Amino acid sequence: MKIGVIGAGAVGLYYGSLLQRAGHDVRFLLRRDYDAIAGSGLTVTSPAGGFHLEQVQGFRNPRDMGTVDLVLVALKAFANRYLVEMVRPLLGERTALLTIQNGLGNEELLADAFGGDRVLGGVAMIGVTRGEPGVVNHMALGSIRLGEFNGGRSGRSEQLAAMFTDAGVTCEAVADLRKIRWEKLVWNIPFNGLCALTSQTPGKLLANPATHRLVAEIMDEVIAGGNAQGLSEPISREYGDEMLTSTVRHTSDYRPSMMVDRLEGRPLELEAIYRIPLDYAARQGVPMVRVGMLHALLDQGEPVQS
Amino acid sequence: MKIGVIGAGAVGLYYGSLLQRAGHDVRFLLRRDYDAIAGSGLTVTSPAGGFHLEQVQGFRNPRDMGTVDLVLVALKAFANRYLVEMVRPLLGERTALLTIQNGLGNEELLADAFGGDRVLGGVAMIGVTRGEPGVVNHMALGSIRLGEFNGGRSGRSEQLAAMFTDAGVTCEAVADLRKIRWEKLVWNIPFNGLCALTSQTPGKLLANPATHRLVAEIMDEVIAGGNAQGLSEPISREYGDEMLTSTVRHTSDYRPSMMVDRLEGRPLELEAIYRIPLDYAARQGVPMVRVGMLHALLDQGEPVQS
Repeated sequence: MKIGVIGAGAVGLYYGSLLQRAGHDVRFLLRRDYDAIAGSGLTVTSPAGGFHLEQVQGFRNPRDMGTVDLVLVALKAFANRYLVEMVRPLLGERTALLTIQNGLGNEELLADAFGGDRVLGGVAMIGVTRGEPGVVNHMALGSIRLGEFNGGRSGRSEQLAAMFTDAGVTCEAVADLRKIRWEKLVWNIPFNGLCALTSQTPGKLLANPATHRLVAEIMDEVIAGGNAQGLSEPISREYGDEMLTSTVRHTSDYRPSMMVDRLEGRPLELEAIYRIPLDYAARQGVPMVRVGMLHALLDQGEPVQS
Repeated sequence: MKIGVIGAGAVGLYYGSLLQRAGHDVRFLLRRDYDAIAGSGLTVTSPAGGFHLEQVQGFRNPRDMGTVDLVLVALKAFANRYLVEMVRPLLGERTALLTIQNGLGNEELLADAFGGDRVLGGVAMIGVTRGEPGVVNHMALGSIRLGEFNGGRSGRSEQLAAMFTDAGVTCEAVADLRKIRWEKLVWNIPFNGLCALTSQTPGKLLANPATHRLVAEIMDEVIAGGNAQGLSEPISREYGDEMLTSTVRHTSDYRPSMMVDRLEGRPLELEAIYRIPLDYAARQGVPMVRVGMLHALLDQGEPVQS
C-alpha cells in the first residue's frame, strides 16, 4: 500500500517505520529530520527490539509526494491550520485519511475539507519520543484502535487494522470512533495537562494522595462528559481505574506529549485536548469544572505559535 | 503600651516599627534579621515615605523579652507548631493576643492554649516584603480590621484600633471576626495559590481572560463557603468584584506571600489558607471544587518544613 505520513513527529515516524518495515511504500513529509534521514536513514529504539531503515522516502513538500492510498496524519493538532493544504496533494480518487492525532476536532477538519467518507480516526496508546534527528525512541505500549468518522464497521477499517497488525502493531477496528476518542481523553486530559503544569511525571502525580485524587476526579468528569455524547455504550467508571493501574505499571516515568511540548517551548494542543471537549460536554449540559480550571491554568504564557 | 512582636517577617516588622515610631515600647523576636537590626536598626521603605529606627529592641529568645500588654503575632502559619511556646513567656495576667496571621485556625490555636478571652484576630490588607536584613519594603495598602475571637464589640478592640490609627495605620474594630477572615480569604485563596502555582503576578492573571474568569470563579466559591458559616451578614458577590478592581489598581505587580514563599523554597501556608477553610466549607455542605483542586496542585513537592 502507498502510505503518506503527514506530521513526522515521534508518533508518525514510529508507525510509518513499522509499516515500511512490513513492506509498504511509505513516504514521510519531513521538516526537522529531513537531512538526518536523507543522510543515514531512520532508527527506532524500543524495549521490544529496535531496528534501522537505511532507505527512507522523505519529502520537504507534499506536492512532491505523489498520490497515495492512505494518508496517515500524526501532525500536532496545534498545527492543524496547515493540515488541509498538506494533505490535498496526496489525494487520489479513493485515498483514505486516517488521523491518529490527539483530541477532538481532527476528523471534523478533514471531513469538512475532503468529505466524511474518506476519513477514519485512530487512537494510539503509546509512549514514544524523538531522540536525535533520525532517531525515534519507543518507550512503552503502542496499540491502535481505529474507526470510521461516519461510524459503523467497514471493510476498510478492518483492512487497515489488519495492515497494522501485520506490521506488528496491536490494532482493532471499532464501530464507535467517538467512544475511543473519549476513552483516550480519560487519560490525556488529566495527565497531559497536570504533567505540563507541574512538571511532574504521571508516576509522581499518582504517588501523592492529593494529586492522585485530583487525577481520579478529573477522569470522572471526562467520563461523564463523554457519556453525555450518546456513545454506543457508556464508558464505565472502572475504565478510569484501569487507566490508573496501567499508568502506574507502564507509563509512570513517561513524559506526556504536552509536558514535553511545554518544556521545549512549543505550543500546547489545548484546542484538541481541552477546548473542544469542554465545548462538547457543555453543549450537553455537563460541566467539567476541574477540566475547565486545568485548561485555564494552561492557557496562558504560551509561546506564540510559529 | 508594651508590645511583643512574634514573627518578625515583613508584616510583623512593618507594623511593629510603626507602633514603635508612635511611641510604644516594642520588642521584636528576631531570627534572620537579628544581627542587622542590632547593628544598625530597622529601615522601612514606603511610597508613603520611609523611615529608620536606630534603636530597636530585638531578642533571639522569647524568655528574654519580659511580659507585655499585647502580643502581636505575625508568624508564618506553617510555623504554628512553635507558636504557643514562643508566646507563653510574654504573658502577664491581662496580656492580650492579637494574631494578624493569614488564614483560619490561628485564633483557635491561641485560644486553646491560653483561653479565648485573651485572643483577638486581625486582617491586614497589605503589600509588604522583606529586603536586605534590617530592611522592610512597604509596597501598597496597609489597613487592619480586627475583632475579638469570642465575637462582639469590646473596649479592648476599640482601644487597639485607636492605637493603630494613632500610629498611622487605617484600622477598624469589627464585631464579626469570622466575616473579615473569610473576606480576606476571598483575596488570599485565589491569588496566593494561583500566583504561587503559575509564578505570575495578580495583574498578569487578571490580564488573561481565562485566568481572570478562574479567579472570579474561585472568589465565588470562597464567598459561598464563607456565607455558609453563619456570618453576621453575608459577604456580597460585589465584594469579589471590588477585590478584583482593587487588585488591578493597587497590587497588580505585587507578589503574594505564598508566591514569594514558593520562589524562595519555603513551606507554604496551605493549612491556614486552604485546608482549614476547605474543611469548614465542607462541614456546611459547600464544596469548593476549584479551591480543592488548587490545594491539591499546591500540596506537592514542597520542601520539608525545617
